[in-house]
Amino acid sequence: MGAIDRVASLQGGIVQLNAEYARVIDDDRLEEWPDFFAEACVYTITSIDNHRRGMPVGLMYADSKGMLHDRVTALRKANIYERQAYRHLIGLPAILGEDERGVRVETPFLVVRIMRDGRTDLFATGRYLDVIAETAGALRFRERVVVCDSSRVDTLLALPL
Amino acid sequence: MGAIDRVASLQGGIVQLNAEYARVIDDDRLEEWPDFFAEACVYTITSIDNHRRGMPVGLMYADSKGMLHDRVTALRKANIYERQAYRHLIGLPAILGEDERGVRVETPFLVVRIMRDGRTDLFATGRYLDVIAETAGALRFRERVVVCDSSRVDTLLALPL
Amino acid sequence: MGAIDRVASLQGGIVQLNAEYARVIDDDRLEEWPDFFAEACVYTITSIDNHRRGMPVGLMYADSKGMLHDRVTALRKANIYERQAYRHLIGLPAILGEDERGVRVETPFLVVRIMRDGRTDLFATGRYLDVIAETAGALRFRERVVVCDSSRVDTLLALPL
Repeated sequence: MGAIDRVASLQGGIVQLNAEYARVIDDDRLEEWPDFFAEACVYTITSIDNHRRGMPVGLMYADSKGMLHDRVTALRKANIYERQAYRHLIGLPAILGEDERGVRVETPFLVVRIMRDGRTDLFATGRYLDVIAETAGALRFRERVVVCDSSRVDTLLALPL
Repeated sequence: MGAIDRVASLQGGIVQLNAEYARVIDDDRLEEWPDFFAEACVYTITSIDNHRRGMPVGLMYADSKGMLHDRVTALRKANIYERQAYRHLIGLPAILGEDERGVRVETPFLVVRIMRDGRTDLFATGRYLDVIAETAGALRFRERVVVCDSSRVDTLLALPL
Repeated sequence: MGAIDRVASLQGGIVQLNAEYARVIDDDRLEEWPDFFAEACVYTITSIDNHRRGMPVGLMYADSKGMLHDRVTALRKANIYERQAYRHLIGLPAILGEDERGVRVETPFLVVRIMRDGRTDLFATGRYLDVIAETAGALRFRERVVVCDSSRVDTLLALPL
């Protein structure tokens, strides 16, 4: 039961981690986004259909912090953020368990997209499947699999979710 | 003040209860949905207009766990889940008080519907009016009245909210 | 570190404050809305574009509790609430710091609008930039700057966000 108690005490930290994660994306501080991940990490965006089929690679795939930085550089060059912004609403995390890699957590999300001209639409919903571990005194994602509810997201996808 | 302290300490548990409740619906594990209710329970979906008029029965009504199981069986036969899925975003619970039946809680929600072809729309918003009690060491709904903000929901309604 | 500990202990209270704030607006108990503010307060609604330019006055501006009461009286006379209602989904607060005025907090929000005929739309998203202080044993807003993500909100704006 000691492990379960420890997991429970992590909940406040996980909530803060998600709140900060959403802020760096929505505030256009993308350069800080990779800092939420461990050096060796997996970040991937997929759809529920691909995820159910066990397909390994989705709409976007990175397996190191360096690849996340590269992604940000590419987005800046393409001026993606000039044309749109996101607003994340992240739900309450369900802590599913813990193993030697970290704590496994599932958290629902909803992302609204705001275009430069003010048009607003419901861009994506889904859930984060995370493995979270403490490194150097802070919680970091070892794995964040973003499972979108709709397979229609892909063609529009630009910014991190 | 002892009762109020106890209510406050329940808040973490109520948040977890709602997170798990949303997951079984959104993950298509409908058969587990009745387990969130006490044996003798009330589950009803209504609109704010009906609720204000004090109308007793809404769009859906069940007063036992058995009726909830019957509802799931009917949904499976109709293959409702083949055609659509939900994503719940459940807000923060406001604890309103406590009496001999349990803790009275009000919690806002938003449900997005994802159709099989990927179309996504804002399906329903509203609030849960709950009576929650501890039975056999777990929090369970003795009463969950789902008050939808819009009276337009009814004709489309299929899955539990 | 004592200040940081105190800030952390405020988080539960801030969550409750936001939950209650949303309820008085969404339940059409507008007359209670000014009570969430200190006597000397700032409440303003602005857009991200105006906010970035440091423009002092936005779509709505009040610098006392009395002005908030006046606003409610005007809304009642115009029968705004007869025609529409809101549903707030308020995200998790990020506590940014504390100074002599109070605790600085940033919290994302999403507001859905429900028209009298049942039509529902995503009305506004954005974030609250707050200064929150304890007065007479309760947490109150000294400052609530509502920064809307879209500049399209203004022409439709009626109720408090």
